[in-house]
Amino acid sequence: MSPVLDRIRNGVDSEQMYGTLDLLKANPELGIFQFRAHNHWIDGAHNRSTIKAFYGAGQEDSTRTQAFTIDAGEPAVLLGSDTGANPAEALLHALAACLTTTLVYVAAARKVRLTEVESTLEGDMDVRGALGVSDEVRNGFTRIRVSFKVKGDAPEEKLREIVERAQARSAVFDMVTNGVPVEVGFVAG
Amino acid sequence: MSPVLDRIRNGVDSEQMYGTLDLLKANPELGIFQFRAHNHWIDGAHNRSTIKAFYGAGQEDSTRTQAFTIDAGEPAVLLGSDTGANPAEALLHALAACLTTTLVYVAAARKVRLTEVESTLEGDMDVRGALGVSDEVRNGFTRIRVSFKVKGDAPEEKLREIVERAQARSAVFDMVTNGVPVEVGFVAG
Repeated sequence: MSPVLDRIRNGVDSEQMYGTLDLLKANPELGIFQFRAHNHWIDGAHNRSTIKAFYGAGQEDSTRTQAFTIDAGEPAVLLGSDTGANPAEALLHALAACLTTTLVYVAAARKVRLTEVESTLEGDMDVRGALGVSDEVRNGFTRIRVSFKVKGDAPEEKLREIVERAQARSAVFDMVTNGVPVEVGFVAG
Repeated sequence: MSPVLDRIRNGVDSEQMYGTLDLLKANPELGIFQFRAHNHWIDGAHNRSTIKAFYGAGQEDSTRTQAFTIDAGEPAVLLGSDTGANPAEALLHALAACLTTTLVYVAAARKVRLTEVESTLEGDMDVRGALGVSDEVRNGFTRIRVSFKVKGDAPEEKLREIVERAQARSAVFDMVTNGVPVEVGFVAG
């Protein structure tokens, strides 16, 4: 084993990372994951997701000791009382977080030490779609712009390549740009 | 004005809702919104989004007094230290929250009083894609299943219609199922 300080880059243990990748190459079935969320309505535009259990690496996870909760809301102009980021803003968070983590992991694998990663996201929406006022506009964002500022011990060109590689590997970037089939079921309570 | 208790259904003020819809019909330009998020990397898979400012209804918002923050992380098996829901789980939250709020607004418009709305979401992913181990699987979820449990003062068939209408109008359901063009820019720090 290398000394710990050499192994840890960007908060990622490179030996653990290479070990994980080797394990997945040898045992593809360990790559199968299922992530889950449970949401319950509170009032109006206020609802809350609880996130804990997941399946992965061949078993139900038993390492998470606490559930994460995320509250949603809408501002008054969209008929809520501002009890949390709205769902479209939460999607921007998911996209920013995934691109950032992917970028940090890619940099660690390429032996680049980062000192700063910031991003600003903007999504454009005509809310007449989601509010049912117009069928001529889509319900969701028509486009999303992401602007990354990245600092680290590598030339600009290498940092740019890492940002590009992050787009090529990010799970949420793939989902948001390409879409995912969603099945919705219903049971009366 | 009707008595307040008659106007409020599911936490939504129906007179305010109809007023908003009428205003948007008369002034389509008020439907133009821009939502934003700012994210900064903390360490490893830990990063945090800050969400506050948005543009909508013809002006920069001045009603939100506090920023919302959402932390992201990854469990140990995915090389993090479990500092928050992971980005794919955050996307499930965004989808659940949007379908739920849309469902609640649709029910209010159709004069249905809801007593309970819960949903469970599952997303299937082969993490070999995002981790760069395989080019033969996609990076994101291959599919998402959403299961709604809804109770209210309407027959099952009407509740089912409301769940279907929510899918037809939800901004995040549109984005996740159909995809959104995303531009990513980069500046060296």
